[in-house]
Amino acid sequence: MVEMKSEPYTITFGIIGAGRIGKLHADNLLSHVKGAKLKTVTDPFLDEEWAASRNIPVTGKDHRIMLDDPEIDAILIGSPSPEHAAQMIECARAGKHIFCEKPIALDPDIIRNALAEVEKSGVKLQVGFNRRFDPNFAAVQEQIASGALGEPHIIRITSRDPAPPPAEYVASSGGLFMDMTIHDFDMARFLCGSEVTEVHAYGAVLVDPEIGKAGDIDTAVISLKFANGALGIIENSRKAVYGYDQRVEVFGAKGTAMADNNTPTSMVVLNESGTIRDKPLYFFLERYKIAFVAEMQAFVDAVRNDEPTKVSGKDGLVPVLIALAAQESLKTGKPIKVDSL
Amino acid sequence: MVEMKSEPYTITFGIIGAGRIGKLHADNLLSHVKGAKLKTVTDPFLDEEWAASRNIPVTGKDHRIMLDDPEIDAILIGSPSPEHAAQMIECARAGKHIFCEKPIALDPDIIRNALAEVEKSGVKLQVGFNRRFDPNFAAVQEQIASGALGEPHIIRITSRDPAPPPAEYVASSGGLFMDMTIHDFDMARFLCGSEVTEVHAYGAVLVDPEIGKAGDIDTAVISLKFANGALGIIENSRKAVYGYDQRVEVFGAKGTAMADNNTPTSMVVLNESGTIRDKPLYFFLERYKIAFVAEMQAFVDAVRNDEPTKVSGKDGLVPVLIALAAQESLKTGKPIKVDSL
Amino acid sequence: MVEMKSEPYTITFGIIGAGRIGKLHADNLLSHVKGAKLKTVTDPFLDEEWAASRNIPVTGKDHRIMLDDPEIDAILIGSPSPEHAAQMIECARAGKHIFCEKPIALDPDIIRNALAEVEKSGVKLQVGFNRRFDPNFAAVQEQIASGALGEPHIIRITSRDPAPPPAEYVASSGGLFMDMTIHDFDMARFLCGSEVTEVHAYGAVLVDPEIGKAGDIDTAVISLKFANGALGIIENSRKAVYGYDQRVEVFGAKGTAMADNNTPTSMVVLNESGTIRDKPLYFFLERYKIAFVAEMQAFVDAVRNDEPTKVSGKDGLVPVLIALAAQESLKTGKPIKVDSL
Amino acid sequence: MVEMKSEPYTITFGIIGAGRIGKLHADNLLSHVKGAKLKTVTDPFLDEEWAASRNIPVTGKDHRIMLDDPEIDAILIGSPSPEHAAQMIECARAGKHIFCEKPIALDPDIIRNALAEVEKSGVKLQVGFNRRFDPNFAAVQEQIASGALGEPHIIRITSRDPAPPPAEYVASSGGLFMDMTIHDFDMARFLCGSEVTEVHAYGAVLVDPEIGKAGDIDTAVISLKFANGALGIIENSRKAVYGYDQRVEVFGAKGTAMADNNTPTSMVVLNESGTIRDKPLYFFLERYKIAFVAEMQAFVDAVRNDEPTKVSGKDGLVPVLIALAAQESLKTGKPIKVDSL
Repeated sequence: MVEMKSEPYTITFGIIGAGRIGKLHADNLLSHVKGAKLKTVTDPFLDEEWAASRNIPVTGKDHRIMLDDPEIDAILIGSPSPEHAAQMIECARAGKHIFCEKPIALDPDIIRNALAEVEKSGVKLQVGFNRRFDPNFAAVQEQIASGALGEPHIIRITSRDPAPPPAEYVASSGGLFMDMTIHDFDMARFLCGSEVTEVHAYGAVLVDPEIGKAGDIDTAVISLKFANGALGIIENSRKAVYGYDQRVEVFGAKGTAMADNNTPTSMVVLNESGTIRDKPLYFFLERYKIAFVAEMQAFVDAVRNDEPTKVSGKDGLVPVLIALAAQESLKTGKPIKVDSL
Repeated sequence: MVEMKSEPYTITFGIIGAGRIGKLHADNLLSHVKGAKLKTVTDPFLDEEWAASRNIPVTGKDHRIMLDDPEIDAILIGSPSPEHAAQMIECARAGKHIFCEKPIALDPDIIRNALAEVEKSGVKLQVGFNRRFDPNFAAVQEQIASGALGEPHIIRITSRDPAPPPAEYVASSGGLFMDMTIHDFDMARFLCGSEVTEVHAYGAVLVDPEIGKAGDIDTAVISLKFANGALGIIENSRKAVYGYDQRVEVFGAKGTAMADNNTPTSMVVLNESGTIRDKPLYFFLERYKIAFVAEMQAFVDAVRNDEPTKVSGKDGLVPVLIALAAQESLKTGKPIKVDSL
Repeated sequence: MVEMKSEPYTITFGIIGAGRIGKLHADNLLSHVKGAKLKTVTDPFLDEEWAASRNIPVTGKDHRIMLDDPEIDAILIGSPSPEHAAQMIECARAGKHIFCEKPIALDPDIIRNALAEVEKSGVKLQVGFNRRFDPNFAAVQEQIASGALGEPHIIRITSRDPAPPPAEYVASSGGLFMDMTIHDFDMARFLCGSEVTEVHAYGAVLVDPEIGKAGDIDTAVISLKFANGALGIIENSRKAVYGYDQRVEVFGAKGTAMADNNTPTSMVVLNESGTIRDKPLYFFLERYKIAFVAEMQAFVDAVRNDEPTKVSGKDGLVPVLIALAAQESLKTGKPIKVDSL
Repeated sequence: MVEMKSEPYTITFGIIGAGRIGKLHADNLLSHVKGAKLKTVTDPFLDEEWAASRNIPVTGKDHRIMLDDPEIDAILIGSPSPEHAAQMIECARAGKHIFCEKPIALDPDIIRNALAEVEKSGVKLQVGFNRRFDPNFAAVQEQIASGALGEPHIIRITSRDPAPPPAEYVASSGGLFMDMTIHDFDMARFLCGSEVTEVHAYGAVLVDPEIGKAGDIDTAVISLKFANGALGIIENSRKAVYGYDQRVEVFGAKGTAMADNNTPTSMVVLNESGTIRDKPLYFFLERYKIAFVAEMQAFVDAVRNDEPTKVSGKDGLVPVLIALAAQESLKTGKPIKVDSL
């Protein structure tokens, strides 16, 4: 955890969008994150009861009330994805630091345009790739970043959801690579410390035929080449009956580092059936609970200490490009270079 | 987690004593515990800066300001141990529900006297044996309580601190059995679901000769007999160089259930030296973080739903009796029956 | 372990080639394998001292002495790989059952020709893909074969050697895919219960530039498509500094089954550095010790009970075809269909 | 494994008693143990078929045929326990080195008398405490012996059988402490590197009332004091439904070392029920397979190299004394000093 420097000020937040993820961030800002306070929450369909229980000073339907509020230092964009880019531009122009949930947009040009505005304004931007702040994955990355494992040779990511989303969601989500694997593309870059240059993808519909009818896949294996020479593998499934399966491994010249799933308890039972432990934590709210706090703390610290954020605008763009390359590979049956896009 | 019944009211708390443990409970009441709010904190040496940062409505040096406050429903006693029993009586007489940190007192008669007042008043009392609420230990207990493991045959508790307390603390703490093992005596009763009837203790000074000079031991193995026929073992050390070692096992007719330590991450590194994982979490604040929240939630739920608390006044008394029996065994070299005290 | 049926006879063996692997099989036949005895061992450079110490009745330089010996029921071909196919034909024509070390040959036509002779003769043939008999991998395969995991969706194989072979070996070995990955191609088919239809390979030289100069790679990630719709991933390295890394996972509709490495001991040490266990067993002689016995027992049982062997001639051919497809993929940068070869 | 010195001779063995354990040792001598050969096996009820299948040169009913045979260097005593001491004396007088299964006798005076004869004769003697050669336990002991863990503070031994013996066996076996815990008493001394000075035992009949009727217990917790100041705990049960449970821990000033059970495979299955692994290996023949070979190799090496054996005559006597002290403690309800016997 970043230590706070001398005399940093307290960052006053506004939150755009108080759905599940917006509420989670609000609660974290209210109690777990140091150096931050929450002033305003807006949502066209605001849960008034929730807002009252949290003593949030200002609430409303329209996020523009916080753009002109000089007390607001930073805005968290937790609205539906299609609104992210436009709101990011508004926030940047209003001089508010920005924490934006992923994805900024599905179209790289829209992202590039928004990032240009952010850059022009000089505000800080952090994108919500929360998994980088998971203690397990962060520890693995540190093994590589510190040189303890030597040069990375193979990056391996296992990423399986506990249950597929509804078919109607699949259609609007941008598909498996854009909706689910995008986190793994970010993780691959983060762990390897190098850019993905080429992608080859195999996909299949093995979980739910409705997903296939909606034009998407539910199972995939994706091979990666990195600029530093390392190779990578990601494998995805929309349905692991035993829960959320989130593991990574970085194999390097001096050893290998693996992060396993977390479980609710450490209990081991031995009986006539075998040796039995818990299943992994069910889904991302449980698994990444600490990561959600840590990413917000990191953002607050970056703003207070005027340092670069840990997940930059570029980090918000590049995984989208990799996802597009993976989609193209699936369509053409050929490996695709990422910079060809 | 206990579900809240219909229309329960919000419990307003006062806290006596805002040292490390009082502050921890305050933070939990402010953000993690549902159905509770914190109004008042008193401490003769109150950390004013901390209190201000938490927006605590009423603060003061003298705990009696909360006894007469009709808005206060429940009082958390987190003052130095010698004050617990007298404050408990004051709270009971004032009609306030009580959460009291352990130990109530080191003298069974003082405890019995305080408990009698609590009983007379009808207020609810929960004693701070937080480990019962550790997810690992609670899961093991549930295995026995549910019958899944059959009748318990052997209870085994490994309990080692990361570093010994200062010698001056040892002198005033009541000694290893009263200060440290008392948690394990509570755990033994909790896991076995039966009372300890007899104790045999071996002790040694292997960690720090100063502890021996202060008249105490720093290493112990304690054997137990339970009323239901089961046998038990506790082993303690004041110094495990690898961190806080807190493991239990219940072996029964149909299997065995073990709870292992928790670690900061799940990372596994394989290199030329071996296969390496994290050490256990360093000490009780880290290891029992969830347990501290869960015990307070359980207390709030018991008060709101008018149900018995999960750690009763008797649960506060009996481990003291077992500790006294262990002390007697160490002194005489003989097993001691608990009801002989 | 297969139980012997009533009145099976004892199989008398001859062994062609008493290098490291031939001696290992000889010792297993002498003491661990039931229903077998060893009569003859030939090797142009026979270790006479070893043969004497083992009380082997007949020894010689020329393997043809066992072809005409009516007491010999079965011949184990453990000679250098280039001799395998021709000796297999000789054994088949002599009516001897054959256990042949892998690979039969590097050229599919040579293999097909040898297999045709075996088929014509009616003798039994088992190919030395020993890993199928590793208890860990066999248990995983049984999970899929029994239906316990449902349909397989993703097959994942991690296969890393502890140290690269000498550069001169690399040149003659047929390369990484033919020499090392060939075991993984066999394992993929075995675990999935379905044929590989398409292969995509990425390769790199990250371990030893000399291997690159010899025209080979030392690091690879290979993606697979199977006839039953499943997807697969294999990743290889010639150098894992922590020892032989041999893990598999089969992820299916009803769960996942993983086999981890074996270690010399189960010891766990906790000290100030962390939680430390053994490294994996060093290399294949240690890791597959039990598998080498079990494959020979399975062969003896198949011969005695007149049942099909567990690793057929086809099982000796197909991995070579997959390896050729992988080589072609690496060369062309495109996925290659296996039946295009 | 001890390396053989230059020009050691091959040790020729005779075996007295070819029951289960005698046959196991015979097979190990025939194939796994280096520097040894087996000439003679005697048993009043010899399994002739087995002997023929193993090509054992000389067989008979009376063990005295090997006493006069000048080719026999060493004799393995695997007869029923009551015959051990007398046969040991015969072997010693005949100048044969002796490997004697435990216990030498249940009566310390009989043991002392036999050991005196052995000492007088100058032959080597190793007692069959095979668990010292288990790779897990040997690795833990090495941690203490090497100083890596610092001074030992607490020795902990969990030792549970998968199923109780028949009640009639219990009667003749000498009881739980003499029959089962005796291995743990040996292990405690071995791990701690110090003698047990005092014992306190609690016992119960929780598994099988018939065992209680036969005058024995089936469940026990035993506390130990060692001469070097360390404390110890042993816990036993005659029935662990999940298999043979054999774990140890040595906690010392610089860390702790634990040995866990072994399992048939390393497979992990995750499904809707949880995370599932194998149960421990069923019983001592499976668990201590490697240990049985290693103890015999150590004996052969000691004889060939004229070095002290790894398990001396004293090591055969002392655990019997500790068992007697434990029996006395159970009877009197008091701790008992071992040298009081």
